Amino acid sequence: MAKPKEQLMSEIMNRQIQMASRPVGNPAPKDFCLVEAKIPDVAEGHLLVRNRFLSLDPYMRGRMSPAKSYAKPVEVGEVITGGTVGQVTKSRHPKFVEGDLVVANGGWQEYSVVKGAECKNVNPSWPSLSLALGVLGMPGVTAYTGMKNIGKPVAGETVVVAAASGAVGSVVGQIAKIHGARAVGIAGTMEKCRFVIDELGFDNCLMHKEPDFPEKLKKACPDKIDVYFENVGGKVFETVAPLLNNFARIPVCGLIAHYNDTQLPEGPNTTPLILRDILVKRLTYRGFIVWDFASQEHEALESLAGWIDEGKLKYREDIVDGLENAPEAFMGLLQGKNFGKLIIRLG
Amino acid sequence: MAKPKEQLMSEIMNRQIQMASRPVGNPAPKDFCLVEAKIPDVAEGHLLVRNRFLSLDPYMRGRMSPAKSYAKPVEVGEVITGGTVGQVTKSRHPKFVEGDLVVANGGWQEYSVVKGAECKNVNPSWPSLSLALGVLGMPGVTAYTGMKNIGKPVAGETVVVAAASGAVGSVVGQIAKIHGARAVGIAGTMEKCRFVIDELGFDNCLMHKEPDFPEKLKKACPDKIDVYFENVGGKVFETVAPLLNNFARIPVCGLIAHYNDTQLPEGPNTTPLILRDILVKRLTYRGFIVWDFASQEHEALESLAGWIDEGKLKYREDIVDGLENAPEAFMGLLQGKNFGKLIIRLG
Repeated sequence: MAKPKEQLMSEIMNRQIQMASRPVGNPAPKDFCLVEAKIPDVAEGHLLVRNRFLSLDPYMRGRMSPAKSYAKPVEVGEVITGGTVGQVTKSRHPKFVEGDLVVANGGWQEYSVVKGAECKNVNPSWPSLSLALGVLGMPGVTAYTGMKNIGKPVAGETVVVAAASGAVGSVVGQIAKIHGARAVGIAGTMEKCRFVIDELGFDNCLMHKEPDFPEKLKKACPDKIDVYFENVGGKVFETVAPLLNNFARIPVCGLIAHYNDTQLPEGPNTTPLILRDILVKRLTYRGFIVWDFASQEHEALESLAGWIDEGKLKYREDIVDGLENAPEAFMGLLQGKNFGKLIIRLG
Repeated sequence: MAKPKEQLMSEIMNRQIQMASRPVGNPAPKDFCLVEAKIPDVAEGHLLVRNRFLSLDPYMRGRMSPAKSYAKPVEVGEVITGGTVGQVTKSRHPKFVEGDLVVANGGWQEYSVVKGAECKNVNPSWPSLSLALGVLGMPGVTAYTGMKNIGKPVAGETVVVAAASGAVGSVVGQIAKIHGARAVGIAGTMEKCRFVIDELGFDNCLMHKEPDFPEKLKKACPDKIDVYFENVGGKVFETVAPLLNNFARIPVCGLIAHYNDTQLPEGPNTTPLILRDILVKRLTYRGFIVWDFASQEHEALESLAGWIDEGKLKYREDIVDGLENAPEAFMGLLQGKNFGKLIIRLG
């Protein structure tokens, strides 16, 4: 519980992390700044929310770049975008009352004024509030809809996913298992690989940094690969591509290996090879973001929550305390330093 | 009609074109040889067919390469594979009698012994026998199934196709128009472009060899591109890719610009860019060959023949006489020298 003095402060001041400069390559501490700001008035249709948890996700690196994408970039001096769970402290929207727990896109700050129409109540039956940012939130629904609509795993097939201990990858592999497919994960450390196999129940998990990773992946996929759920790109993609079976499906969900790129890699240019593979193996590459399947969100959450209840779907959170630690945690996320769904717990 | 002397010869000797050596890069005359060979016995279940027309198609370049693909390569000393239309001169299959006109994969030769189970009767109501190798054969069905299952053009969208005066491209653009979409073709000569616009009814057609082709394509697609039916790859692909709209579909059907490649192009490596575009624009790239949709062949032929009857679907054939001219015609096909569906008429 917050102390009286803090409560008084929070009535007037908010702490937020703004983008101080546009990162070039790897984001650096100088690209972020922690500022105090007055909480704006709550206009009609809006809510004031005191954020409890802030989600850190790789896609945010994209929002920090000026390049055209599926959402508009964050501008210098703006609060960085991000999913939040918090408690309504003032409501001017008929669907919410003070005290409600809501998921919103509140950004990197302790208090947010958000449109009520863009908020959702957190299901009180879920084991923890923060799950609404992970396995029972955007990352979980991303994994579910990507597998349902594009990956379409069939019993006996082989599904490969990188960032396998992460928020999306961990769910992807477990969904593969639920469908009777073989799940092979790729992760950055031996500890993560052990977790993916022992706790999440993948059939195998390999470290991409090992020099014999290509041989190991080949061995781990004796029937080659039918679904490659693309979270990373880069060397992992290059290693997976030759192992794809005819009619393989590649949901393209993220490319974390490239988010800090400042230029294209040197040649040769492998694009003709990729196109040839698409043709000859009749591959399907399809990019998506979770909102493309917004109408399936309810179904996804019901299924995911049901699997958690049945013990078929495990999750791991990596919780870091304090808004001021968000920049460092985020920089670490892009290097794979987190272990599980990365969440900032706010004061 | 064949003269008596020739008929006598044909009873004992066949003329065929074999692959003399595996082409490296552009096929050369030395890679082909015309040989006389005895016609083998007709085993149970087989037919002897006197071929009237031989289809020349870009995919055959792939069969001449040793690389693994969706069909096994032609070996040195073997007859080159190819679709044929001909007349049954001997039948040991219960479904066919002497005199039947059949489509088969008879290869580059005057007589073929083929499995009856792999032959189909030519519909006698069609305007010409040779159409069974073009608009009412493999290329037409390729265009139809690629557009139906992957391209899925919607009224008001823009469809772009290269090799637009060719066997597949000409049908793709006309199917786009039938669905109410805008059709923009790309072709190699002004004469072809005029034909594509004036005769086939595309909205526009551009020459890819012109230096200002990128600007012209941009201007010809004011609402950008929703379907790019990929027949060619190379520079055309590079020019089209930046113009793709969100949720665009790219049926990958052929890559003629790369068939003679002996190495990958120089860098930079644009593969990360292609993947990023797939993700950010949520593109669908899907490779296919016509046999992937074999169950739709009847529907495709009915639709295509119906559109021809209604005057909605035009076609153009480029007919070359004499088996001995097949190698040169094929080498020209890979350079875009044909104008319309390339067919060899046999003696």
